[in-house]
Amino acid sequence: MNINQYVSDKAKKAKAASRALANLSTEIKNNALFKMAAGLEKESAKLISENKKDLAAAEQKGLSKAMIDRLTLNPDRIKAMANGLREVAALPDPVGEVLAMRRRPNGMEVGKMRVPIGLIGIIYESRPNVTADSAALCLKSGNGVLLRGGSESVHSNTAIVEVLSKAGAEAGIPENAVSFIENPDRACVMEMLKQNQYVDLIIPRGGEGLIRMVSENSTIPVIKHDKGICHVYVDSKADLAMAGDICFNAKVQRPGTCNAMETMLVHQDIARTFLPAFISRMKAAGVEIRGCEKTITICPDIKKATDKDWDTEYNDLILNVKIVQSMEEAMEHIALHGSQHSEAIVTNDYQNARRFQREVDASAVFVNASTRLNDGYEFGLGAEIGISTTRIHARGPMGLEELTSTKFIVFGNGQIRT
Amino acid sequence: MNINQYVSDKAKKAKAASRALANLSTEIKNNALFKMAAGLEKESAKLISENKKDLAAAEQKGLSKAMIDRLTLNPDRIKAMANGLREVAALPDPVGEVLAMRRRPNGMEVGKMRVPIGLIGIIYESRPNVTADSAALCLKSGNGVLLRGGSESVHSNTAIVEVLSKAGAEAGIPENAVSFIENPDRACVMEMLKQNQYVDLIIPRGGEGLIRMVSENSTIPVIKHDKGICHVYVDSKADLAMAGDICFNAKVQRPGTCNAMETMLVHQDIARTFLPAFISRMKAAGVEIRGCEKTITICPDIKKATDKDWDTEYNDLILNVKIVQSMEEAMEHIALHGSQHSEAIVTNDYQNARRFQREVDASAVFVNASTRLNDGYEFGLGAEIGISTTRIHARGPMGLEELTSTKFIVFGNGQIRT
Repeated sequence: MNINQYVSDKAKKAKAASRALANLSTEIKNNALFKMAAGLEKESAKLISENKKDLAAAEQKGLSKAMIDRLTLNPDRIKAMANGLREVAALPDPVGEVLAMRRRPNGMEVGKMRVPIGLIGIIYESRPNVTADSAALCLKSGNGVLLRGGSESVHSNTAIVEVLSKAGAEAGIPENAVSFIENPDRACVMEMLKQNQYVDLIIPRGGEGLIRMVSENSTIPVIKHDKGICHVYVDSKADLAMAGDICFNAKVQRPGTCNAMETMLVHQDIARTFLPAFISRMKAAGVEIRGCEKTITICPDIKKATDKDWDTEYNDLILNVKIVQSMEEAMEHIALHGSQHSEAIVTNDYQNARRFQREVDASAVFVNASTRLNDGYEFGLGAEIGISTTRIHARGPMGLEELTSTKFIVFGNGQIRT
Repeated sequence: MNINQYVSDKAKKAKAASRALANLSTEIKNNALFKMAAGLEKESAKLISENKKDLAAAEQKGLSKAMIDRLTLNPDRIKAMANGLREVAALPDPVGEVLAMRRRPNGMEVGKMRVPIGLIGIIYESRPNVTADSAALCLKSGNGVLLRGGSESVHSNTAIVEVLSKAGAEAGIPENAVSFIENPDRACVMEMLKQNQYVDLIIPRGGEGLIRMVSENSTIPVIKHDKGICHVYVDSKADLAMAGDICFNAKVQRPGTCNAMETMLVHQDIARTFLPAFISRMKAAGVEIRGCEKTITICPDIKKATDKDWDTEYNDLILNVKIVQSMEEAMEHIALHGSQHSEAIVTNDYQNARRFQREVDASAVFVNASTRLNDGYEFGLGAEIGISTTRIHARGPMGLEELTSTKFIVFGNGQIRT
């Protein structure tokens, strides 16, 4: 079978399964998730031995230590993966919820019912737990899923999907509802992006190159989970102790994430009071500071930020600092250099808080809280499939509800169009 | 300037305008809509004389009478176009609405705020009133719009956009917020679909060929307004008088629309009672009937439906009739042959009504009402930009709310991620 037939056959079968899945009861879906969790734990040894094949290949290829760590499965990680499935089972089922039901002047009732999207294609890199997480979220929301993991984790992913499928079948989940493209040929990804007859949505999770390739080649709607160039603006009316703690957290707590701060903007009126102690604290935590000229006059001991730095997602312990004359200048900088991901202001000024919240364009805008809180768990959505940077359908953390569509439902008693 | 530069320059300027537009007050936007409406009426003579150029070209090209009628502007149609803008002004502004604000365990409040999507590209055919309608809906929802009309209406559209832009400027709308690609070169459409740096959403409105071309070539998210192969299923427990009226309306009231019925499915238990009188009534209204074999045994006087007929959107006074043994068979037929647009059941059976409503997959599912009611006005959304057949973002009629995105907004007092 050629690549085209192979991928299209997978997509066709998964789509057929998704139709049956859409009408399964919550009880069957939850039961399947519990069985899948138990299956992962029971097959721990098998999963680890398959994972070893991936790890051996990764070492041969000379992948970085960080990459190899992300790739590694061990009993604790498998347990965590299983518990992830149980957490999804505990979340409310979004399917069937009826929204905004209203009576129209002609007497018919019109509302919307949440329904699954259909078949979701997920293209991701490296970490094998994404396989189980994505499958669980799609299953609970009634969607079929066509998974395409990175070639470096193909043995681990294949083994995980086998366990999930077997447990699913025992619980009454249609065959192929969780499907996996195990052929490592990169041409499969391009084929997957052309399956608009069967696949309703593509979610790419990974680096900039992957996201761009998917966006440019997909004939299927794409919800991107793109990079974050995030800012915290410390206003002249900020509580400076709070500002210090929020900025420290936004940079240092986990610098490799998309919602970590890359640039801190500081109002000139409080720069001399705020910056010296804050920069010392950051340096003590191992953060390299790159400042604008004004920042350097206050703290001469730092590097000068280049034009490129303001547009860089470091994913690392490096922070740009810029002194601004006004909140307007801060908002202008964010509009020019930000990636509309997570933006924050620290202030006690009512007008500034309201205006920043309203005018700044990002998937999440914070007043007096860390950008690191832009997250499905923190926002109360439960588990998330990622943080959407696409402006349609779902923006910001995507939980179960964001994996659904709606249909209009109408109850009439003979209404016609006149 | 080459086509690429020309289109990309238009898109870039419109995107810049959309940023300013996003923060305009409702008052300014409504005032602009009223000024635009007055402008269209005032420039009626100019619009008609520009329209005459399009009509002359259309006749030379030998376009059909129906096409030429759709293309024609006259004082009444201009008045209707102007009143359409006033109706949009009267609708509530969706921008700024705050949804689902909740307090989280750590004390921060999290909600969503409706914001404009950004810059919307609309690609459409023929009718010049779409230019004004689309511009009004995008403006009211705070979105910039990049319009690309059919080459056959380029003079009319250019004149309409000129009037709208002039009136908008007087009311304080940023220049280029309503932009139009007047170059008739078809290559412009392909370039438009590559402007993902500036355009946030593409809405194609037109025939199957246009929709397919856009879906296959766009690097920007697309919300399709695709064809409708719609069914009405007359259940064994239907009120047959109601069923007759609903089916008559669904086929005859305006057969050229996407929500008109193409196939009627009839339960075998009531077929002999229902069909003869109904088919006579349809024939009297000029409807050609194409039946399944069973239908022909009851009403021998009709054509036999071919395999292809069940998959055809006639947009005309032609109706397929099929007798089914059960609701399951009807739902199976709909799943196989329908286009997930508008589907209806006529029944007084509680279980069947619930099950059909739940299991049938379409943008709108009706119990005891005509498929022709799948419409923004009828559903209470106000004006609509069309009926989406895409499964993400908005499905079914798209009004002002469906032209918005959301951002998460967070109010904290020093919350950090732990």
